[in-house]
Amino acid sequence: MGANGAALTAVVPAGGAGTRLWPISRAASPKFLHDLTGSGRSLLQATIDRLQPLVGDRVMVVTGASHAAAVQEQLPDLASHNLLIEPSPRDSMPAIGLAAAVLERHDPDAILGSFAADHVIGDLDVFADCIQQAVRVAQTGALVTLGITPTFPATGFGYIKAGEKNSVLGAPQARRVQSFVEKPDLATARAFLEAEDYFWNAGMFIVSARVLLELLADNHPTMVDELRRIAADLGSIEDRWSSLEKISIDHAVAEPAARAGRVSVVPAAFAWDDVGDFASLLDLLTKGRPGGALRVLGDERLVLNRESSGLVAPDGGRVVVTLGLDNIVVIDTPDALLVATRENCQDVKKVVEDLKSMGRTDLT
Amino acid sequence: MGANGAALTAVVPAGGAGTRLWPISRAASPKFLHDLTGSGRSLLQATIDRLQPLVGDRVMVVTGASHAAAVQEQLPDLASHNLLIEPSPRDSMPAIGLAAAVLERHDPDAILGSFAADHVIGDLDVFADCIQQAVRVAQTGALVTLGITPTFPATGFGYIKAGEKNSVLGAPQARRVQSFVEKPDLATARAFLEAEDYFWNAGMFIVSARVLLELLADNHPTMVDELRRIAADLGSIEDRWSSLEKISIDHAVAEPAARAGRVSVVPAAFAWDDVGDFASLLDLLTKGRPGGALRVLGDERLVLNRESSGLVAPDGGRVVVTLGLDNIVVIDTPDALLVATRENCQDVKKVVEDLKSMGRTDLT
Repeated sequence: MGANGAALTAVVPAGGAGTRLWPISRAASPKFLHDLTGSGRSLLQATIDRLQPLVGDRVMVVTGASHAAAVQEQLPDLASHNLLIEPSPRDSMPAIGLAAAVLERHDPDAILGSFAADHVIGDLDVFADCIQQAVRVAQTGALVTLGITPTFPATGFGYIKAGEKNSVLGAPQARRVQSFVEKPDLATARAFLEAEDYFWNAGMFIVSARVLLELLADNHPTMVDELRRIAADLGSIEDRWSSLEKISIDHAVAEPAARAGRVSVVPAAFAWDDVGDFASLLDLLTKGRPGGALRVLGDERLVLNRESSGLVAPDGGRVVVTLGLDNIVVIDTPDALLVATRENCQDVKKVVEDLKSMGRTDLT
Repeated sequence: MGANGAALTAVVPAGGAGTRLWPISRAASPKFLHDLTGSGRSLLQATIDRLQPLVGDRVMVVTGASHAAAVQEQLPDLASHNLLIEPSPRDSMPAIGLAAAVLERHDPDAILGSFAADHVIGDLDVFADCIQQAVRVAQTGALVTLGITPTFPATGFGYIKAGEKNSVLGAPQARRVQSFVEKPDLATARAFLEAEDYFWNAGMFIVSARVLLELLADNHPTMVDELRRIAADLGSIEDRWSSLEKISIDHAVAEPAARAGRVSVVPAAFAWDDVGDFASLLDLLTKGRPGGALRVLGDERLVLNRESSGLVAPDGGRVVVTLGLDNIVVIDTPDALLVATRENCQDVKKVVEDLKSMGRTDLT
């Protein structure tokens, strides 16, 4: 047991391209490797910083082979045996499942918490309290998720429908999960916002290693066998990994377990943002500051603004001048420049597709 | 007398920073050195191309010491004795006056025509006809200017008020000039547009070398003496040039000569554009094409546009993506990027001032 009363191990799957944040985020240098908040720390580094008071050095990062070197450079204190390298992307279940299988060999009752490497979280005291409640519930054999209290009728997230309260000592806010709900349309999202029983699914799961693998074995027994074989001999990962089904932890475990009444949720009132696109990044950078101004992500000395609002990232080292533009988004990098309006930021994903079909994969 | 009936010599003062076209136009590489129309020729080259059928190789270019090498590179056929190099900028009168003094030594009755190096002119047959009429009138001892027929109530140009017709054989459209008028306010410009007696002063003067120097001597006799001394010994220009008054040909000669009834105007119905800023450049590039699209100045393969209109110059070699923007102006260069709206293009001049006061003269 750690200082916080629970030997929690953090598992951080560091993957995902973040194409809506192109041209900062690229396949070769995805979102989690970038400092998108101007804090001086990448999203990955900030994720580890945030977890450290809760887990110490019990952190496992799971990332793709092409990002391993960058992750090691950004996290020099991460022990090499705590960096699991996926030979190819198989979505979140194999990644988190492998971490569970590795943990299980040392302590089957070890509790793991999975946290995305590219989200921004505020209110760290509230975050810590939610995690501790979740650990208590996980110790009863449940799969526990943190549900983010919605602040607007989001259509870009899946939802968690919460039921009655659990009665676990030390977890006064925990509730049973009735079901996971796919991304809703706007009318449904509005109804969810009013109903107060719905939470955003931010992909944060707290569960014991053994329970996670048991739940996975219900529907994917051969995957569990294979993950345990890899954990026993990590040198075999190259040969075995590609046979694993590409599937998310939500589909593989969370949804069936919810139907079986095995999932709980701790409602999370901390500030959370998945930094999905430049519009949400602009909101994040604007929070608590006067509106109507221009936000600079990077070196402010490179930006000369006359009567413009929005977001400028001068990442190409050149001077950027904005003149008379409202809600403009200018992302300048050494080999590509994006100029967009705040309203069109979700279409950046399509730009990346366009570039691919133009044969410019060197830029994606 | 040349093939066109007049031994006209073209004098092209190649100066002026064009700060409203920053960051393409810089002090070290001003507007006239750039291909702003996508024709494959710089404005200076296009100016010479346009004059060649009228003057053959009787072309004198007057430029600053810092631009001489670039001018020679762009005009390899220009004889070196036809390139006059100003040690420092003294405005248009010393530049054109020196050319007149040089010409006068060979033929006092030589007719010179001065044409800016950074304007765009269409309808070359009409242009040639106007020049020929102007030459006829200049041969009578007048200072002749070409007056551009206004197409909108411009407040950025000086105007020429035309009086009664001249009666010069071969110059049926020539009229006497009543006066030169300073840049008007909008209401006055609207009245000028209706009145039909007002023309834009595009700084095109046709006059014999001797008459120009005589008119100049009326108010600036020492300047004429000095210009003649320099013309007699071009090696002395370094020592003598800085003593010359910095003054435009309009103030030094055209305005006083008009008051003395010595100036005529040939109304010019050809297309003319001084490419004053990116908004007028956008208009120029849009002319005769369907509106509402994005115009690319440069390599179209570098621009990926989704639902935007305006002007993109991908001069930095990088891919430029525009997303959902109306009337946007994106000028990308290797060391500076401008993002503006069409409506704010006149303020680019202020940006250049801002950069200077920020100590970034390396970018201006």
